[in-house]
Amino acid sequence: MSPINRRIVLASRPQGAVTADHFRLEQAPLAGLAEGRIRVRNLYLSIDPYMRGRMNDAKSYAQPVALGDVMIGATVGEVVESKHPNFAVGDKVTGMFGWQDYGTSDGAGVRKLDDTNVPLTAYLGAAGMPGVTAWYGLNKIIAPRSGQTVVVSAASGAVGSVVGQLAKLAGCRAVGIAGGTEKCRYVVEELGFDACVDYKAGNLFGDLKAATPDGVDGYFENVGGEVLDATLSRMNPFGRIALCGMIASYDGQPLPLKQPSILLTMRLLVQGFIVSEHLEYWPEALGTLATLVAGGTLRYRESIVDGLEHAPDALIGLLHGKNFGKQLVKIG
Amino acid sequence: MSPINRRIVLASRPQGAVTADHFRLEQAPLAGLAEGRIRVRNLYLSIDPYMRGRMNDAKSYAQPVALGDVMIGATVGEVVESKHPNFAVGDKVTGMFGWQDYGTSDGAGVRKLDDTNVPLTAYLGAAGMPGVTAWYGLNKIIAPRSGQTVVVSAASGAVGSVVGQLAKLAGCRAVGIAGGTEKCRYVVEELGFDACVDYKAGNLFGDLKAATPDGVDGYFENVGGEVLDATLSRMNPFGRIALCGMIASYDGQPLPLKQPSILLTMRLLVQGFIVSEHLEYWPEALGTLATLVAGGTLRYRESIVDGLEHAPDALIGLLHGKNFGKQLVKIG
Repeated sequence: MSPINRRIVLASRPQGAVTADHFRLEQAPLAGLAEGRIRVRNLYLSIDPYMRGRMNDAKSYAQPVALGDVMIGATVGEVVESKHPNFAVGDKVTGMFGWQDYGTSDGAGVRKLDDTNVPLTAYLGAAGMPGVTAWYGLNKIIAPRSGQTVVVSAASGAVGSVVGQLAKLAGCRAVGIAGGTEKCRYVVEELGFDACVDYKAGNLFGDLKAATPDGVDGYFENVGGEVLDATLSRMNPFGRIALCGMIASYDGQPLPLKQPSILLTMRLLVQGFIVSEHLEYWPEALGTLATLVAGGTLRYRESIVDGLEHAPDALIGLLHGKNFGKQLVKIG
Repeated sequence: MSPINRRIVLASRPQGAVTADHFRLEQAPLAGLAEGRIRVRNLYLSIDPYMRGRMNDAKSYAQPVALGDVMIGATVGEVVESKHPNFAVGDKVTGMFGWQDYGTSDGAGVRKLDDTNVPLTAYLGAAGMPGVTAWYGLNKIIAPRSGQTVVVSAASGAVGSVVGQLAKLAGCRAVGIAGGTEKCRYVVEELGFDACVDYKAGNLFGDLKAATPDGVDGYFENVGGEVLDATLSRMNPFGRIALCGMIASYDGQPLPLKQPSILLTMRLLVQGFIVSEHLEYWPEALGTLATLVAGGTLRYRESIVDGLEHAPDALIGLLHGKNFGKQLVKIG
């Protein structure tokens, strides 16, 4: 008798906040494996902010998930059956297998992983897509010089934590913005940022000003809204803003930018980007990041919930900033 | 007896809209000319949007005009007295001599002009700073490819008119935004743009959509506010926005950008710039522009008011879009 594959599909499109009702858990027996394909038992699922956008049927940088389709997502797992010459049972791999127990593939987009010195889950975070996102935005858009000040929002998250640590390695002053004293303490004490501003403390602009006495030369934006407004007011001439995420407005209501004229008066550069469109940099970035993780230089934190059935709650929590570090779901 | 120099100084700083009360006309006899200097009789004064910013005592890209100082401004004129080896009486020159009848200089920042084939006033417009502004923003920020769509606001103005004509020469679809049917007719029929949207007609987004059936790849922004919001909604992926001016908010009230998330979803680049910070491109740009003007390829229109005493009204009119083409004041 075939094993059962559990999968979570998109049941309906949210108009505002995401709730558990927008998802549906389904089960089906696994079909036989075709020649030239592999079957992977997914072990961990990555939960990322971009997933919110894929739930909308809107003009954006990627196709929406169709109603009834398995939710998109990056996974790490193990090959359990192979009819493909390049993969053997037992190989550890990462791919976009989505919110389900098992995935199959012809090998396209599936990468074999070496977990000798780098933990498997790190390939979904600091040594994976979030890490490359940080690397690209920092090096290819902000391109900071030693001694400059780099600010990053969602600083304790999977992307933000790497941005600040890479900025420090580049000789910059790294300032984080995060929600709550615990996250801010972690950002400074564990990750080594120079300062972290708690946007929940009620004095965002004043605290940010105190943390950036020389102004801000580069800003890596994951949040948008008031955090973007405040940082914009601190930008130095010729500053660069890497626009990676605007999670504050993902639930539908557009959050205006209060003073766009600062972009002109400070001659700023703003570049929106999505890291999957810059694949030419991934090998270099992944190599650098894996080396830094393996050596213990690049630190990270994970929030792991156990069980595929909890993936919706994990995403909902992430969208409300309840995760602390990289959000993962253990599914195998 | 020395001739009298009339000059207009900044009398007070506007809190909102500029009025005539913010200026004061003064007169004083000319002092003797020191060794190594030239005296220039200013013939035409250029009136430009940037002047509004210099009236504020605010953090911006340039020093404000001090209270009691002559208002800043570019001029063309004629050398009437020279104690400098490189200049002779009768030389036509351009410089930043400000809102006054006469200026003196040691030659720094003063450029001799050849008005054989290029009218003197064109050096304040299409073949001067406004033309270079258009050239830089179009070529160095928007960098359009043939067949792409370029939109420019304030399209009948000194900068906008050059942007669209250069875009046409580059093989692009050029779409203007201007205020009123007369300006729009001029932009299409005289300047050769493919289309022009009248933002005063009450259907800005719909009309812009109709004029940009393939979306917008490059946007040259002179205005801000609702015009920026509307154009942002039409941007194609990887579009570029050259942020040159935001005249709609120059009177103090910040105009928010309603949907900054488009910058991310469309992976746009926005670059604020001020052309005086890119002097390395001026010789190339000025050469190209003067050739195009001399050959009749690059067309322009001028609004000339007669008399230095009318310069304040000329600036106030410009800030309200009442000028039609390059605004000049004839002062000699």
